[in-house]
Parts: sequence; structure tokens; C-alpha cells
Amino acid sequence: MSKGEETRLAVLDQATRTASQVGLSGVTIGTLAEQTQMSKSGLFAHFGSKESLQLETMRHARQRFIDIVLRPALAGPRGEPRVRALVEGWLRWDDTMPGGCLFVAAGVEFDDSPGPQRDEVARIQREFSETIARVFRSGITAGHFREDADPEQFAFVAKGLLLSYHHHRRLLGDPTAEHRTRRAFDDLLAAARAGSRPPTPDSA
Amino acid sequence: MSKGEETRLAVLDQATRTASQVGLSGVTIGTLAEQTQMSKSGLFAHFGSKESLQLETMRHARQRFIDIVLRPALAGPRGEPRVRALVEGWLRWDDTMPGGCLFVAAGVEFDDSPGPQRDEVARIQREFSETIARVFRSGITAGHFREDADPEQFAFVAKGLLLSYHHHRRLLGDPTAEHRTRRAFDDLLAAARAGSRPPTPDSA
Repeated sequence: MSKGEETRLAVLDQATRTASQVGLSGVTIGTLAEQTQMSKSGLFAHFGSKESLQLETMRHARQRFIDIVLRPALAGPRGEPRVRALVEGWLRWDDTMPGGCLFVAAGVEFDDSPGPQRDEVARIQREFSETIARVFRSGITAGHFREDADPEQFAFVAKGLLLSYHHHRRLLGDPTAEHRTRRAFDDLLAAARAGSRPPTPDSA
Repeated sequence: MSKGEETRLAVLDQATRTASQVGLSGVTIGTLAEQTQMSKSGLFAHFGSKESLQLETMRHARQRFIDIVLRPALAGPRGEPRVRALVEGWLRWDDTMPGGCLFVAAGVEFDDSPGPQRDEVARIQREFSETIARVFRSGITAGHFREDADPEQFAFVAKGLLLSYHHHRRLLGDPTAEHRTRRAFDDLLAAARAGSRPPTPDSA
């Protein structure tokens, strides 16, 4: 790895931490120059503009997410154990950063601001939803989950539980957040498991 | 209502919409002066400072939330119908505003920024969680839900489903978000209903 590449990665690591705490809008050439003690002109030479710096930060964080969460989960046995490995990986990932998953922050930050940043965070979040659904589907094929279970619905609820974890842990400072998240996944997986009964239709 | 009070409410309505789209940090005396065509000095006279303007905006939005979501739900029959009325009310509430629930945005915006704004949004979010748990508990008392159901766990998962709705509808533009949210609540309520089996313990 060249000296320039090393510097670039160190800067993007710092940018990822900053985005985790104050949002991606807080990642600018100016603030990053202060945080890394590099010159603004040096950072401009590396990244060109604030917008491209923010996009590079998301791509860098996505690569770290692949290394920390996806690769270890996909290396393990498929089906239910892999779903659980994804969940555990995500909890670890959220705790890796000072302000938790930066894609949670960036998602809310840019959801009403059309542009390349919004497109990138939406792409990354959609990709993660699809991965959850695909891993769940491998559990149907493996006979762990019911044939009639719906992988996209599972991914929708799973995303919600991870967002609720972030909300309870980060905003509400709830010490039970981790326990409640695991318990919610236990219930969700138990309901999907082969041999379990499908949910009773609405009797209200 | 005095002319001054009328003006104040109109300004806070605009501030609520702005906070919903660009976040509470985007609500400043300056931006609001532009949006309402009022003078900065007039707004200072009403609100004093950016911080107190942002706090007033949250209190105003909380009052609207009570009117739009809580009061109608609490006026209806208790137990499961009231849980459902809360969910439907929240979906309506999220759609009332141009950028969805401003407390979702403010929660992520301030979760790493200690101060009065963070305290206020955390207080409002905690209060809503407690309301969900209390309404669910009334469903245990009414015999709709199992005796061993856990109201705080229900509130944790319910919050996640609402956050997932916001995420899928606002960021991912997913047209199935509303349908998936209702279906997830149907499943969650079916699993909690009196006469249903408690979740099978982990067989993995």
C-alpha cells in the first residue's frame, strides 16, 4: 500500500467516525483538516470536493461493513445460524463506531434531500435488506424455516429491530436494548421455524 | 386566541414542517424568517434564541401528536383495538408531514449531542414508548393478550416496526412499506393474543 493510499484510508476512517457522531453533513474538507491535522489543499487533492468526500466515506464504510459483518457471517453455516451471525455482526458494527452505524444517521439525514448522497445511502441500505432476505431464503432451502415464510417481510422486520436497537441504545440509553433485540429475533426466528404454526389469522 | 398567539402557532407549524424535512438543526431564526416572511427581530421577540425555538418546535409537535394520534386512540375501546388505533394514528402522523415524523429525524440528529434538544426528544420518545406499553398492558387486563406477554418488549418491537416503515417509505421509496407494517403488526398481535402459544424456545 502506497503512502498516499495509507493516508487516504486514515482520513476516511476519521470521516467515518465523524459521520457516525454528527452525521455525514458534518464531514467536510474543513472539519476533516482540523481532525487529521492535514492541510485543506492536501485533502482537496485527495478528494476533490465535499460531495465526493462524503460519497467516498460511505463507500469506505460499506467496505468495512463487508469486512466486519458480511464476510464472517457468509463464511459460517447457512440458514438460521447465518441469520443470527448477521444480527450479531450488525450489533458489533453499531458498537464499533462512536455514534453507532453511520448509515442509520445518513439515511434519516438525506431521506428528503435528493442527490448523490441520498442515492448512495439508499443503495447501501437496499443492498443490506436484500442480503438479509437472501440469507433468510437460504434457511428455507436448508429446511430451517417454513416454506411459506416471506424473506422480504423478514428483512423488513429485522431492519426494524436493528433500528430499534440503535434508537434505544443511542437515544434512550436503554441498558436492556441488546437483550431485547436478541429476544425479539429469538421470537421472530421461532415463528419462522419449520414445524412452527403459521400466525393465526386476525381473530379480532 | 390573541393575534400574537396565532402568529406563534403559524410559525411553529412552519418550523415543524421544516424540522420534518431537513432536521431540527435546520430550524433557525434566520431560515424561519425567510419562510414566514417575518422579521428576524420579530421572531427573536417571540422565541429568544435558536435553542428555545427548537425546543418550542418539539413541544408544539408533541401537542399535535397528542391531538392526531393519542387522543383519538385513547377515546376508542381499550386493549387490542387501541393498540391498532395507535399504529394507524402513527402511520397517519408520519404522512402528515412532508418529511415524516420529525422525532425520528431529531432522535438520530441529536443522539450524540448532549444538551436540551437531545433531552427533549429523548423525553418525548420515551413517553411514546411508555404509552405503547401501557396501552398493550390494558389489552392483557382486558383478556385480549396472554398474561405472560411483556408490554415493554412489545413496545420495543412496535417502535422498530414504525422506524422500519419510515425507513422503507422515506429513504427506500418502497411502495409495500405500509402493507408490510400492517402485516408485521398482525403477526405480532396474533403471537400475543390470549389462547396463542408462547414462542417455542430456541431449538437450534
